[in-house]
Amino acid sequence: MSEIPLQVIPIGGLGEIGKNMMAFQYDRDVLIVDAGLMFPENDMLGIDYIIPDFRYLSGQPNLRVRGILITHGHEDHTGAIQHVVSAFPAPIYATPLTAGLIEVKLRQAHLSDRVKLNVFRAGDKLDLSPFWIEAFHVCHSIPDCVGFGITTPVGLFVHTGDFKFDPTPVDRRVTDYAKLASFSARSVVALFSDSTNAERPGWTPSESVIDSAFDRVFRAAKGRVIVSTFASLISRVQQVAWASERYGRKVAIIGASMAENVRMALQLGYLELPDGLLISPEEARNLPPNQVTFVVTGSQGEPSAVLNRLATNNHGTLSIQPGDTVIISARPIPGNEETVSRTINRLFQRGAQVIYDAIDSVHVSGHASQEEQRLMLSLVRPRNFVPIHGELRHLKAHRELALQVGIPDERIAVVENGTKLLFYRDGQMVIGERVPGGYVFVDGSGVGDVHSGLIREREALGRDGVVVLSAVVERDSGRVVCPPEIKAYGFVASGAAQGLLASAVQAAQRVLEQNGARSKADQVEETLSKLFYNEIRRRPKLFVTVHEI
Amino acid sequence: MSEIPLQVIPIGGLGEIGKNMMAFQYDRDVLIVDAGLMFPENDMLGIDYIIPDFRYLSGQPNLRVRGILITHGHEDHTGAIQHVVSAFPAPIYATPLTAGLIEVKLRQAHLSDRVKLNVFRAGDKLDLSPFWIEAFHVCHSIPDCVGFGITTPVGLFVHTGDFKFDPTPVDRRVTDYAKLASFSARSVVALFSDSTNAERPGWTPSESVIDSAFDRVFRAAKGRVIVSTFASLISRVQQVAWASERYGRKVAIIGASMAENVRMALQLGYLELPDGLLISPEEARNLPPNQVTFVVTGSQGEPSAVLNRLATNNHGTLSIQPGDTVIISARPIPGNEETVSRTINRLFQRGAQVIYDAIDSVHVSGHASQEEQRLMLSLVRPRNFVPIHGELRHLKAHRELALQVGIPDERIAVVENGTKLLFYRDGQMVIGERVPGGYVFVDGSGVGDVHSGLIREREALGRDGVVVLSAVVERDSGRVVCPPEIKAYGFVASGAAQGLLASAVQAAQRVLEQNGARSKADQVEETLSKLFYNEIRRRPKLFVTVHEI
Repeated sequence: MSEIPLQVIPIGGLGEIGKNMMAFQYDRDVLIVDAGLMFPENDMLGIDYIIPDFRYLSGQPNLRVRGILITHGHEDHTGAIQHVVSAFPAPIYATPLTAGLIEVKLRQAHLSDRVKLNVFRAGDKLDLSPFWIEAFHVCHSIPDCVGFGITTPVGLFVHTGDFKFDPTPVDRRVTDYAKLASFSARSVVALFSDSTNAERPGWTPSESVIDSAFDRVFRAAKGRVIVSTFASLISRVQQVAWASERYGRKVAIIGASMAENVRMALQLGYLELPDGLLISPEEARNLPPNQVTFVVTGSQGEPSAVLNRLATNNHGTLSIQPGDTVIISARPIPGNEETVSRTINRLFQRGAQVIYDAIDSVHVSGHASQEEQRLMLSLVRPRNFVPIHGELRHLKAHRELALQVGIPDERIAVVENGTKLLFYRDGQMVIGERVPGGYVFVDGSGVGDVHSGLIREREALGRDGVVVLSAVVERDSGRVVCPPEIKAYGFVASGAAQGLLASAVQAAQRVLEQNGARSKADQVEETLSKLFYNEIRRRPKLFVTVHEI
Repeated sequence: MSEIPLQVIPIGGLGEIGKNMMAFQYDRDVLIVDAGLMFPENDMLGIDYIIPDFRYLSGQPNLRVRGILITHGHEDHTGAIQHVVSAFPAPIYATPLTAGLIEVKLRQAHLSDRVKLNVFRAGDKLDLSPFWIEAFHVCHSIPDCVGFGITTPVGLFVHTGDFKFDPTPVDRRVTDYAKLASFSARSVVALFSDSTNAERPGWTPSESVIDSAFDRVFRAAKGRVIVSTFASLISRVQQVAWASERYGRKVAIIGASMAENVRMALQLGYLELPDGLLISPEEARNLPPNQVTFVVTGSQGEPSAVLNRLATNNHGTLSIQPGDTVIISARPIPGNEETVSRTINRLFQRGAQVIYDAIDSVHVSGHASQEEQRLMLSLVRPRNFVPIHGELRHLKAHRELALQVGIPDERIAVVENGTKLLFYRDGQMVIGERVPGGYVFVDGSGVGDVHSGLIREREALGRDGVVVLSAVVERDSGRVVCPPEIKAYGFVASGAAQGLLASAVQAAQRVLEQNGARSKADQVEETLSKLFYNEIRRRPKLFVTVHEI
């Protein structure tokens, strides 16, 4: 086929496919959708964050990136924006709240002057020739989310972004069923759809179920109410405000990221609070306990966020008192279960009543469940289907749903990051070669230099600690000029250490005295290694230096 | 009150209360129930395992430990047995399978000769005066589980052990309703009951639901079937055997711990396999794929167990092929969600069909849910109630259930490990002082020397790695005799390292040359710290030694 296909490449996401970035390429023209980051998993020691590996695109100097479209303001869709615009100086397109959040990032990275940030609204059309974009509203867990219809020379594609079909969202803006249905009339070459909850049967509950749970909890609360949720979950703050108003409470926000998001949401009209409801934390401390609600960060048990500092009694100005009711209005992100559970237990220990999703419906997911995913497929009726935004297990489960609604197996592509999908004018989809498209570790200012080998070294250091020993010997005589100096860290507790380290110094001294000049450090290491293992069954990482003068 | 109370102390368990050990004390006589260990959480670096802190008991030389009763053979109830019997040379009492598993542990610890291991069966009565024990059968996720009625001079107590009320267990031995009901007629001073699933509504499904799920999966499987489950879940192996037999497959076990458990269960009659069904892994490899089932360890994604080695293609003799069906017949233990999910994704990558609990009912919990917990309370009708075996959050939820079935709040004790509960002849329960009763880290042969300070040091080492530098200077002249030697580990990848470490050596050399003799190491450290942070925004742990000659 000499015809130019449209190429689509999912990029980035820690095991999740196309989560952080998608590239649509037609000949030399490229459209990027999203520019997000991931936070490291528990065993990725020392990694600050993880960005998509877009080397395949940046390695082609002739490409013209027409635009960077952002679906919504969550970190996993926006957080790598400074890395992406540094590589591709293309205009960014985002809805007002998303643009506000991105602006902060660009300012912090000193990139504001160098990048054009364009604001559009759901329903707008963008001409990024040869791509023609129709943005449509979707519900999710932050306001102002969109998906995209992308008309290309090959035909129409639909990208859902993260979505759910909430019939009664807090902001009353439902997912744009009509637009989705209208796409189907125009014949959709392929649908790229959010797979996060493809293992969950049924329909994700509406945000509005939380109102009645909040009502129960607020009605029963005798003391202060402290609600912890995601900093960007503006609709939840709205619901807390409504409940607080009904029960005569003022609302104070604690936590920098949440305060900033609330400020921006108020300014842009995504949050409507009655006059005087929002007060400062200082004012809140002077009110009787039953007249105040705190909204705080840290719903994932993050060590430095407000909720964990309350749980460990480490917050400067607020502390948990018996009689407080704490609502954890969030679910643990996979990998955070342990820390969240520990936080719940500690809050109970301090005497709080703790309400979390196992106790009452104080949280709902922001992603579509199986029935909604089937509905999306039925509304759009695509020729081809590509599950994205999920791990391989979720994509496989989403594939089952697509089969059920009648999409033939050969028109479903479950692929991993970096796999090129080629689409032709006749609607044919071909799975192409695989190019680099995974993720890159960012540690300090190092982008991509930390690999699994280095992580394994860090694991080894963390396992049993380190012992550092150095000494000076006279080259010719072998005489020990400076006796061994030893340092241990993370190895044994100070009580047991003294005797053990003293024996280690003696043993090292003996080896140095008995041996010639050659390979002394190795011999000392071997001796220490045996000594420590025999004495205490630990294998610290050893660093021995023998200077010869 | 000069009357001697019965004291009960829950001990050990990582955040779980009374999980690993319970002590019943009357005057100088003590009864220990269970002697288990926990495995470390993700952030407890280098810790091998965790045992109960029984110092309060071992610190009282006059105590007479009458016996160590074991409820069942899981590690969290048996794994610390060598530590416990070393401290208290008392006889152990266990059911046949549990005793068999403990025997292995005692042999490995060279303690078999020094300890009397007594075997009893559910329904037996034991006279450990002043304690009189009635063991009753309960269902759980390993055969041969019991709870105990414990008659003391103060009255009758009931300890459920880990339990569920399964009406149709695989071995057809239901939980002993009659015995539990008969206790209530004799007036129970206090019930100690398993809280693990106190947040789960309803009734835990019976083991028998798995048969139909297995049937669906085995019927559809074209190639090999590989089932991963807990090594001790003998009834699951029985169910795999039944399904395999129905579909003309032989069964091979891979994984040392599982093979050992199966061997013991066969020998003791807890597993009934048709002749010739069980074959060796070698024989299995020579059969056509559709005639073989493998049962393997590693359902928690443990790195060195069989399932993960299959997922990463690191198993010596077996490898996943397209067409294989892998059943993960287990749920991730909290903290293991990430590794299990990664394993599932990798198995999909290798082309296996993967069936896990979100896809079909291939696993059920071994613990009672809310309706069963209410039933236990209603059968036993205790005067006082003490939820155990769960984190504080689960105990709090279990307390709500007890309130619902009519136990007054003041007769429910939600306490943490080490809290003494005093019971008097009139049935009164008093919450006493708190004594040490938490847990102790075991690292190598070190028991209890690793504290949070040391763990934090290990975290610091793991975060950005280490840099070790040493040099030799002449004390009087300040001349640098041996230029600095540098070593880095876990810090930067080898490519970037050379230049950076060379600059570090130069900077160190300059500091040494410019300065007098005093505090050179500190100055070098400060210089290196600044250099690394400026160059690469990392803060490795630095160890600098300056020898003076």
